[in-house]
Amino acid sequence: MSSKAPIGVFDSGIGGLTVVKEIMNQIPGESIIYFGDTARVPYGSKSQETIITYTRQIVRFLKGKGVKAIVVACNTASALALETVKAENELPMIGVVKPGAKVAANTTSNGRIGVIGTEGTIHSGIYKDYVKKIDSRIEVYGKACPLLVPLVEEGLLDDPVTREMVRRYTKDLLDQNIDTLVLGCTHYPLLRKTIRKVVGDEIELVNPAYETARSLKEVLINNKLENDELINENHKFYVSDGAEKFKRFAKTILPCEVIETKDVNIENY
Amino acid sequence: MSSKAPIGVFDSGIGGLTVVKEIMNQIPGESIIYFGDTARVPYGSKSQETIITYTRQIVRFLKGKGVKAIVVACNTASALALETVKAENELPMIGVVKPGAKVAANTTSNGRIGVIGTEGTIHSGIYKDYVKKIDSRIEVYGKACPLLVPLVEEGLLDDPVTREMVRRYTKDLLDQNIDTLVLGCTHYPLLRKTIRKVVGDEIELVNPAYETARSLKEVLINNKLENDELINENHKFYVSDGAEKFKRFAKTILPCEVIETKDVNIENY
Repeated sequence: MSSKAPIGVFDSGIGGLTVVKEIMNQIPGESIIYFGDTARVPYGSKSQETIITYTRQIVRFLKGKGVKAIVVACNTASALALETVKAENELPMIGVVKPGAKVAANTTSNGRIGVIGTEGTIHSGIYKDYVKKIDSRIEVYGKACPLLVPLVEEGLLDDPVTREMVRRYTKDLLDQNIDTLVLGCTHYPLLRKTIRKVVGDEIELVNPAYETARSLKEVLINNKLENDELINENHKFYVSDGAEKFKRFAKTILPCEVIETKDVNIENY
Repeated sequence: MSSKAPIGVFDSGIGGLTVVKEIMNQIPGESIIYFGDTARVPYGSKSQETIITYTRQIVRFLKGKGVKAIVVACNTASALALETVKAENELPMIGVVKPGAKVAANTTSNGRIGVIGTEGTIHSGIYKDYVKKIDSRIEVYGKACPLLVPLVEEGLLDDPVTREMVRRYTKDLLDQNIDTLVLGCTHYPLLRKTIRKVVGDEIELVNPAYETARSLKEVLINNKLENDELINENHKFYVSDGAEKFKRFAKTILPCEVIETKDVNIENY
């Protein structure tokens, strides 16, 4: 595999672009092939079996594009499918949960962490498992927030309705006296301001995207796959539905021009 | 085709059960094969091409079960795919839009109708087209309400957040002095109480499900396909994900026992 090959990144929709942004900032020499499964978003309420099927299709699609490594920029797929699909493939694959759990464990002072995410991510208990491996004394409290992805996809990023839902979803966590809150869904960094208003200034908000990009850099170096040449802006974006809508949204998140997005019939992969 | 054969009914998820309920009430002799595309819900924000692909797969699945007629119990699929897919198949197919438009046209006194629905349904302009065919003097105002399906699927049927979203979505329609409001998505009858609270008692709420069941009865009689024997409760329910969750919900809507629901890999059809 050539170090000039692109990196594959995927998510259920637009949320994974928050991870792409970090990769572009931290390892700007890499080119990215992004896939957003906008036809089948949201992933959060679907079964593990379905998420594994979807992940397999997307990995086949990305491998067909010649990627050298894959970032599962979706907490639900990282929680429910990464382990299974990683074992079936040779190329390096990383998710967002392990890096996020690592930062959270290093951030908390009082040993009490909250995690918000989709039903799939929270019910898997995966953040707790990873944090406990780092420090078994830390307590981890999870809360599923099924409406936050639809609210983000609707663009209600800073809205009274979104604030009210965030207030309801975080209440039990705040009652547990957490000092650290993991944004355990790649859509949630887009709600950072609203979440900050609701939880106040005393709580540390952890965005796994930053640490994921760092982990990716390490993995590339360890596998001698780092592209250390000039800045490469040959990024490509694919979605399973609504390429134009996706393009408009991507422009508001990413630091680069999104030149083209293409529709892909992902069910054929 | 035997008149003893079942009727196929499908929707993107649970909303179509509001149509099933009406069919069970009005033509209790018929048995029903229901398919809810819970893996790919919601349909409302997806492209016409995608909705046609999904509708074709589901029609193939239902035909494989030997159905004698198909009810597209989803406004989005009725609006974007029914015409195309109906032309490709011989068996009788009906949607919910035409019956809904008929009732609305017959209900309004002041000739001003509002329609709420998904993005796909509203942007298609199909309710307006059908109403104008009946009476070209009637004005039809549409409003897309993308968050209502996720709110219903979350079970927030009577909740301040849902009321606030309904208030925002219906404001422009009420400003247009409508006297009739079409619940142009099969999920919305589940929000009837909340919608009633928001729009007040002066507005007639039209639920296309009732008229759809009446149309189905007519179609069966015209095609000599009516099952006029004893009450048949041999209904079957299939979904593309989360059969158990669907079953719990179905029990709260339907007048009969939901004995079994099965998962189907719909992408293979």
